Amino acid sequence: MVVPTSALLDYSTENCSIAATLGLVGERWSLLVLRDAFNGVRRFDDLHERIGAPRQVLSARLTRLVDEGILRRVPYREPGQRQRHEYRLTDKGLALYPVLVALMHWGDRWAGDPAGPPITLHHRGCGADVHLTLQCDNLHQLDGPREVEPRPGTGARRLP
Amino acid sequence: MVVPTSALLDYSTENCSIAATLGLVGERWSLLVLRDAFNGVRRFDDLHERIGAPRQVLSARLTRLVDEGILRRVPYREPGQRQRHEYRLTDKGLALYPVLVALMHWGDRWAGDPAGPPITLHHRGCGADVHLTLQCDNLHQLDGPREVEPRPGTGARRLP
Repeated sequence: MVVPTSALLDYSTENCSIAATLGLVGERWSLLVLRDAFNGVRRFDDLHERIGAPRQVLSARLTRLVDEGILRRVPYREPGQRQRHEYRLTDKGLALYPVLVALMHWGDRWAGDPAGPPITLHHRGCGADVHLTLQCDNLHQLDGPREVEPRPGTGARRLP
Repeated sequence: MVVPTSALLDYSTENCSIAATLGLVGERWSLLVLRDAFNGVRRFDDLHERIGAPRQVLSARLTRLVDEGILRRVPYREPGQRQRHEYRLTDKGLALYPVLVALMHWGDRWAGDPAGPPITLHHRGCGADVHLTLQCDNLHQLDGPREVEPRPGTGARRLP
């Protein structure tokens, strides 16, 4: 972006929304839990097998995501087993979908398996490929960051 | 997403594109470096002041991002100073823009400053607010993950 750097350097990063998001879900295992939650994987043992985190670490990440209201625990009981819990996305968690799609599509293009993407996303309505687009409220499609101007918002804090 | 979980549980996560992306840029300081790079902050001392990482850690993250081809080092020299380097996004780095926008907009909504967003994004062409939308190749706008069906792609690896 061709931004006058000085303008942004005048403002604090202390209430940065990106840093705030990373503080809640920015840890690798947390994002992989969310990946699997979006893919319908909800049970601890399945998550453990797919993610590869140590059980205690995975358990701590799940507890944190529940405490932050991103996942909720829902009881279930298999015949003859004790009651267990599965993990489902809340609205707050579902709202993270663009983060996961953006990470996935970048990886497909720049860090992916030469054999092609392991997963592709399709519109349930028509089957066509799904992607993220950058668009403005006047419905213009933007090609990338060079067409975007960041401006200080209502929460901007000028540095002393 | 209302996916038959069993279908996805049949496939390996070893070549997951999300995990691959996180392996390159998933660390907190790296993402904050990229945030600032998109905002036009390019010099070590400015990055250090805005990000708050220890200098050695920041230096290691910058080296990694350069080694991975996400940033490039460009020499500059202020009058009377020795030559230094600034850091600019490559095409591979610029392609990470949706990741940063998604993290920012989720944070604005769910973890942000009650005073409002510190930064807002605007279309340079018309000034309107910019956001990410989920769209399919038939130009349908999707409301969220429930309208998306993940399918095994050409790189999908069935578990034994």
